[in-house]
Amino acid sequence: MELGMVGLGRMGANMAERLVRSGHRVVGFDPGAPAREQAAGRGIEAASSLAELVERLPSPRAVWLMVPAGEIVDRTLADLLPLLSPGDAVIDGGNSFYKDTMRRAAMLAEHRIECLDCGTSGGVWGLVEGYSLMVGGDAVVVERLRPIFAALAPAPDRGWGRVGPSGAGHFTKMVHNGIEYGMMQAYAEGFAIMQRKDDFALDLPQVAEIWRHGSVVRSWLLDLSADALRKNPALDGIAPYVQDSGEGRWTVAEAIDLNVSAPVITLSLLERLRSREDDSFADKLLAAMRNEFGGHGIKKSG
Amino acid sequence: MELGMVGLGRMGANMAERLVRSGHRVVGFDPGAPAREQAAGRGIEAASSLAELVERLPSPRAVWLMVPAGEIVDRTLADLLPLLSPGDAVIDGGNSFYKDTMRRAAMLAEHRIECLDCGTSGGVWGLVEGYSLMVGGDAVVVERLRPIFAALAPAPDRGWGRVGPSGAGHFTKMVHNGIEYGMMQAYAEGFAIMQRKDDFALDLPQVAEIWRHGSVVRSWLLDLSADALRKNPALDGIAPYVQDSGEGRWTVAEAIDLNVSAPVITLSLLERLRSREDDSFADKLLAAMRNEFGGHGIKKSG
Amino acid sequence: MELGMVGLGRMGANMAERLVRSGHRVVGFDPGAPAREQAAGRGIEAASSLAELVERLPSPRAVWLMVPAGEIVDRTLADLLPLLSPGDAVIDGGNSFYKDTMRRAAMLAEHRIECLDCGTSGGVWGLVEGYSLMVGGDAVVVERLRPIFAALAPAPDRGWGRVGPSGAGHFTKMVHNGIEYGMMQAYAEGFAIMQRKDDFALDLPQVAEIWRHGSVVRSWLLDLSADALRKNPALDGIAPYVQDSGEGRWTVAEAIDLNVSAPVITLSLLERLRSREDDSFADKLLAAMRNEFGGHGIKKSG
Amino acid sequence: MELGMVGLGRMGANMAERLVRSGHRVVGFDPGAPAREQAAGRGIEAASSLAELVERLPSPRAVWLMVPAGEIVDRTLADLLPLLSPGDAVIDGGNSFYKDTMRRAAMLAEHRIECLDCGTSGGVWGLVEGYSLMVGGDAVVVERLRPIFAALAPAPDRGWGRVGPSGAGHFTKMVHNGIEYGMMQAYAEGFAIMQRKDDFALDLPQVAEIWRHGSVVRSWLLDLSADALRKNPALDGIAPYVQDSGEGRWTVAEAIDLNVSAPVITLSLLERLRSREDDSFADKLLAAMRNEFGGHGIKKSG
Repeated sequence: MELGMVGLGRMGANMAERLVRSGHRVVGFDPGAPAREQAAGRGIEAASSLAELVERLPSPRAVWLMVPAGEIVDRTLADLLPLLSPGDAVIDGGNSFYKDTMRRAAMLAEHRIECLDCGTSGGVWGLVEGYSLMVGGDAVVVERLRPIFAALAPAPDRGWGRVGPSGAGHFTKMVHNGIEYGMMQAYAEGFAIMQRKDDFALDLPQVAEIWRHGSVVRSWLLDLSADALRKNPALDGIAPYVQDSGEGRWTVAEAIDLNVSAPVITLSLLERLRSREDDSFADKLLAAMRNEFGGHGIKKSG
Repeated sequence: MELGMVGLGRMGANMAERLVRSGHRVVGFDPGAPAREQAAGRGIEAASSLAELVERLPSPRAVWLMVPAGEIVDRTLADLLPLLSPGDAVIDGGNSFYKDTMRRAAMLAEHRIECLDCGTSGGVWGLVEGYSLMVGGDAVVVERLRPIFAALAPAPDRGWGRVGPSGAGHFTKMVHNGIEYGMMQAYAEGFAIMQRKDDFALDLPQVAEIWRHGSVVRSWLLDLSADALRKNPALDGIAPYVQDSGEGRWTVAEAIDLNVSAPVITLSLLERLRSREDDSFADKLLAAMRNEFGGHGIKKSG
Repeated sequence: MELGMVGLGRMGANMAERLVRSGHRVVGFDPGAPAREQAAGRGIEAASSLAELVERLPSPRAVWLMVPAGEIVDRTLADLLPLLSPGDAVIDGGNSFYKDTMRRAAMLAEHRIECLDCGTSGGVWGLVEGYSLMVGGDAVVVERLRPIFAALAPAPDRGWGRVGPSGAGHFTKMVHNGIEYGMMQAYAEGFAIMQRKDDFALDLPQVAEIWRHGSVVRSWLLDLSADALRKNPALDGIAPYVQDSGEGRWTVAEAIDLNVSAPVITLSLLERLRSREDDSFADKLLAAMRNEFGGHGIKKSG
Repeated sequence: MELGMVGLGRMGANMAERLVRSGHRVVGFDPGAPAREQAAGRGIEAASSLAELVERLPSPRAVWLMVPAGEIVDRTLADLLPLLSPGDAVIDGGNSFYKDTMRRAAMLAEHRIECLDCGTSGGVWGLVEGYSLMVGGDAVVVERLRPIFAALAPAPDRGWGRVGPSGAGHFTKMVHNGIEYGMMQAYAEGFAIMQRKDDFALDLPQVAEIWRHGSVVRSWLLDLSADALRKNPALDGIAPYVQDSGEGRWTVAEAIDLNVSAPVITLSLLERLRSREDDSFADKLLAAMRNEFGGHGIKKSG
């Protein structure tokens, strides 16, 4: 098939290359010239504008967006809309909030542009191992684009599927990332407990490696943890500072909206917020209160 | 009445003075000479040894221990035991673990020494406001010592009581402190949220003061928080470092033993542990994992 | 002063009566005839419509809204707007979301209607004990209405204050309620631990009563807990089902927006959601997983 | 090699069979006659007593214990001790608490009996897929028993290793199980959120299956979850009742002892306790408090 790929960052370029390797033709665009040039070297046809990208695709067109979630998606759609024709399809493969996706799909439907949302998991390893794809939107359109999904996934009939109407793909990916937060935190806590147990002087890379084979906790995230610990067992030079992206927050908010208690996913997010506090007002107030009622000493800062 | 007070630190000396003010005679002992001298200046008869303290009390004696929880209690009891006579009573007013208390009471019972445990709350304010006392042990002995409890409490018939057999007093005090952790953390979080909301430039001492009168969250801990914030609104110079003592840990362990889910008390303890981590291995591993799967940048430490 | 009170439910009628008792004139309106009639019996002048309420007040008017948060506030404001004149003031004393309040204040400002937000705490006890009032909005308008706030508060100069611009009052009340959730949960967990400790057969009403005097955890919520336990020590006939209102959810969401980790307030909300789950899918899946990997038995439902 | 296997339950019999399939000779004992008979049918030599088991093994003997953690281990060791000779080795492959293990190893050392602890993961699937083995104890003894570990593990040189001195194996397995709790809870919450989102009518077995291929959250526990959901998508007939075993509790206690904040592992345990509460006193008290201060209605039980 032929596909336009808008956004040639780490994810977009890798996905485009995986499609090219499978024999698909991909016309790519990125506002950054270096990204376009690198893409060209990987078998992707680089267009110098959205208009050129659209022109170089046959009708009905399929244009995949792989841009950061949020306003950029809206701006890109606003730029694309006058260039597209009824029957064309746009696939948002990024981490958009599913309610934004539903709004956008309704807007595009007014122009008779099809809109799919595709939750995409796999990270930088997807180029080689394939991506896990959760697709939302019209079933007929999904079927039309089957060769694309089949090529991006680890196997043509595995690791992808239409999970529901518009928004369902991004909703599912959002929850996926919430689970990811919880799993990561579980491993992180476990290794931290072992690291602190001086008596046994445990070799953490060795333990991770043992667990990779036959244990109940074996997983891809454990494979990555084992790799990270093997390369840097004491995690030297890494600050205890953990970013979060929108999906974790949205999962927490959505769970509460649905009256589902999800303490582990929620605490995993809070721990990331906590990791970025280096002068917690709450903890200072706790220390001050202890001093007030018990005369307990306060540790001076700085 | 006449009472021996072993341990003339902040708590012991204040309690002794409160008893003296009520007309009781208190003979006090502390291993530290300065503590003994200060006590003497507050109307407490200072004994220079445990033996002297015991000698100067009429039979049946009542000896109150106000020493740090743990081994010191055992050592003090071992020193006291040969000096006491059947029918004498020992009251452990400190924060002993209730299972230790039960063991000690059984040991003392073999020597026909009575043993009461008295969970004591009130902190440095107890001298003036009176102490809340949760007493465990034999009801007859508690009744015999009623004048002591009545004088220590905020009012003769309020703020104290026998709550059950040996251990019940310390158990109740343990749970009291678990609740205290949860309440403190609730306030600390709330004030931290307000402190972070720059848009409103809230005056935290003012908010605390408003809440002290008529609000649902009014409490003694809020009074103290208001005072701490009034004296130092930005909590300048206070490190975000929060100690914990045994009771919080015991409450968490006891809840789990009893199969009671107590997430708020538990998380309050964990937050204190967290406040003392300045280089969390867990957070470093999370950052390393994110880098592994997503190529996300890592913040360098140092 | 003279004040219109819109909404004569439990809170509105009590507040109106407290004002009347202080010598203020209150014209009240409620869509329900019984509420109007009861109000009339409490010294409140009952108007049969919003229009009549507005007519019976001198300019510049002060109209206090005490209606449920959400759409009803918007509808009431839409109904009021054509009846009011520039310089009139509306006070929203309910639990509105502070961002809604900011939007409404901006809308009213276009019509030169003043808008104050007043976070109101105190519950059903406020009639007698006075309310804690956190006021947001223009300082001059707050000053003009000082007699109203002074009469509603526990004392003329205590328990109320202007805490910031429009929205700041409701923001502060929102956080107040978040703290309230945390405190309530802390007490609930503590009493649950004691209730489960059969060995000591603790008398929970007695323990609560002891703590009320001199302990670190004394508070108004403890007073209420003691009262509830005294009336019904085993809490017989009460379902373990806990509602929540908007403020808890908003506090949790706001904390995350501000990157403040607030685990105790958050878990307190989640525990309420959990209390309303009687057939948790998460727990069923956990049981199913345990069966899958360990052959552990599953408890059959029903 | 030749090995005695004490305990022929699900785990012990499977492990013995896996060893037999690899060409080792296994003499097994179980107090239950049916277990002995079944073992005999699987190539394991069944001994009718511990004494017979010991007699039928050549010196130096290796006896693997696969019995429930706790007292049974102590009793079995007490029974074995008079039958063994200096130089024999005992391997505790169960989920013993690592401090018990250290105590037992010291006791056995006095009799010059070697003692290894082997944390064993893999569940009922281990027979086919191999077990992940974390071994603690003397390195020379571990080396002597290498053929046993190599046969039990998924591959001779993968999935097993000596991780440290006596106790280190069980310590590592304990943490493994803590992580397992956290991961399970993360998945359970995520699927519960999706299950509750009626709008999308998500097909949970399909989502699980998609995630198994290429996603960040792919794991063996996800494979099992996918299988459980495929067989019973609504989890009909499964009670939301989740057991826990000692390791989760020990991990939580150990983390606190080590001053490591492990909120996700901890909350995973608490959620299991919570799943078994059907009449939470804490929630009843919360409902009663809300009624006290706000006049909020209480749901009647029963």
